[in-house]
Amino acid sequence: MTELAQDILAGSRRALARALTRVENGDAAELMTELYSKAGQAHLVGVTGAPGTGKSTLVNKLALALRERERTVAIVAVDPTSPFSGGAILGDRIRMRDLAGDPGVFIRSMATRGSLGGLARTTSDMVTVLDAAGFDVVLIETVGAGQSEVDVARLAQSVVVVEAPGFGDDVQAIKAGILEIADILVVNKADDPRAKNTVRALRSMLDLGMPPDRAAMLHHGRLVDAALPVVETTEGGWEVPIHQTIATSGEGIEELADLLAAHRTHLIESGEGERRARARVLTDLESRLRDALLDRLLERVDSADLGSLVDAVTRRELSPGEALDRLAG
Amino acid sequence: MTELAQDILAGSRRALARALTRVENGDAAELMTELYSKAGQAHLVGVTGAPGTGKSTLVNKLALALRERERTVAIVAVDPTSPFSGGAILGDRIRMRDLAGDPGVFIRSMATRGSLGGLARTTSDMVTVLDAAGFDVVLIETVGAGQSEVDVARLAQSVVVVEAPGFGDDVQAIKAGILEIADILVVNKADDPRAKNTVRALRSMLDLGMPPDRAAMLHHGRLVDAALPVVETTEGGWEVPIHQTIATSGEGIEELADLLAAHRTHLIESGEGERRARARVLTDLESRLRDALLDRLLERVDSADLGSLVDAVTRRELSPGEALDRLAG
Repeated sequence: MTELAQDILAGSRRALARALTRVENGDAAELMTELYSKAGQAHLVGVTGAPGTGKSTLVNKLALALRERERTVAIVAVDPTSPFSGGAILGDRIRMRDLAGDPGVFIRSMATRGSLGGLARTTSDMVTVLDAAGFDVVLIETVGAGQSEVDVARLAQSVVVVEAPGFGDDVQAIKAGILEIADILVVNKADDPRAKNTVRALRSMLDLGMPPDRAAMLHHGRLVDAALPVVETTEGGWEVPIHQTIATSGEGIEELADLLAAHRTHLIESGEGERRARARVLTDLESRLRDALLDRLLERVDSADLGSLVDAVTRRELSPGEALDRLAG
Repeated sequence: MTELAQDILAGSRRALARALTRVENGDAAELMTELYSKAGQAHLVGVTGAPGTGKSTLVNKLALALRERERTVAIVAVDPTSPFSGGAILGDRIRMRDLAGDPGVFIRSMATRGSLGGLARTTSDMVTVLDAAGFDVVLIETVGAGQSEVDVARLAQSVVVVEAPGFGDDVQAIKAGILEIADILVVNKADDPRAKNTVRALRSMLDLGMPPDRAAMLHHGRLVDAALPVVETTEGGWEVPIHQTIATSGEGIEELADLLAAHRTHLIESGEGERRARARVLTDLESRLRDALLDRLLERVDSADLGSLVDAVTRRELSPGEALDRLAG
């Protein structure tokens, strides 16, 4: 085992920070192989929601509550968004300062642009490093921006979706496609008079029914099709709670920590946790396979040949299917 | 050439509908090769925005305005969202009825779940079919749900992002990451007194600067890296307009049609259109290559072997990297 891996397992903060930077730079393949077998003990909790829902304050307070329960906490804040909105997120990070002096807390934020697929892989590896480093809970916080929510839901074991009143009171204003990924729905800013409308809207949407097989809903692809056993339903008794909080005052945060612990127990006892883990491995492996196979092919292809093929397709002299045959044929 | 392709090129509606169904069923490879060389004439316009912005009414009115200019119009409405929000979208589709009697208009909606990658490919092929069928303008309408917006922006030549007042007046409420994909920003419901706040917020966000190289911002991947020439800036003089409309009354729709025509001229004259087309081809080709290479590998892999590899990774006896080596090594 490398010294870096040993230092991480021994609890060195500096080694941990250095390893995470390596992950970000895409230079951690050997390290990940070393650490992967040491991970698997942490509770991975995803927290997602639109900007303005108070999500970061909630994560902050949740971390404090977990610390009071003597759980160590790592926070990975992922911001896969544009420079336009970067300011708000940086502001959120500053609010985390009251956690910074505590050796039982580790915070890492990633404001990355570019490929969402790449970001998902980087986040996944970071979480594995933090898990191996021995943190009891890893909180993965992400901005509600479509695909990144799904990526986090794939990665986390328990997904908290944060809503807030005031983004319009009707059902349409609640972002499409976000409810299915929630294990726990939080309506933050519950002291806002409009909160009960938000709760009612969420309730009526939940009553339409959740997808029976969460792992198969989140994970798609040829490997999942090939090697994830089909089941009728795996949720076995978990009803998605709608939980109200006021993160600024801490109200409802203890109960949220309880709900998370209950969800973890549910995952273990129902077998759903292992099934999701398997689905996660299949998705990850497929993504790695796709990259590796493409890399291998491109090593063999002359770049001038590639350029003229692409020219021909752009000029519509060749169809994409024909170009594919020439490249991979 | 197959009879189906001939019938589409001759203007048969029934053939067109049949072809689109084939595309949806993933059974159109030969047809796509035939039609690809006949496409490339239509103006591909993406229209995206959150539910509740009046986007569908806007598309409706825009189609009517284009018809008055004697342009034929196809509309592809993509809804990559959940069953929870399906109702609203269906309602929107019903509003399209006043277009339905016109032989110069063709409407197709797709309410698909599942892989966004697959949805992007299907949409792309549908657009190619409609383009080959001779429609002057193809309007691609999608719900603002993260990745699907980016997929549409990749596919379209001109992207209209629709905002509306009332989703909160501050900058945070405008969805992160959406501004960079806009060629034209529309503030609909401009008769709402809060509209001027929305315009002001958008203006100040635009003033932070748009990404200089749109094609490189939208398209990532190994093929783009290998074969898209790097340029300093390609936008060359196009300033993203913030245009106010009241779709319900038709106000501002004529001007929107003018703006779209101006953007198309800009794309052609600046060379940006061809560069984006090349980037699009590279992204498409990479996605096809990845699928084809993976399929080929999986044909060789025994499914019991795959299952036990995945078991070992799930139990953390093997790292994903080691599993990759065993599969592809």
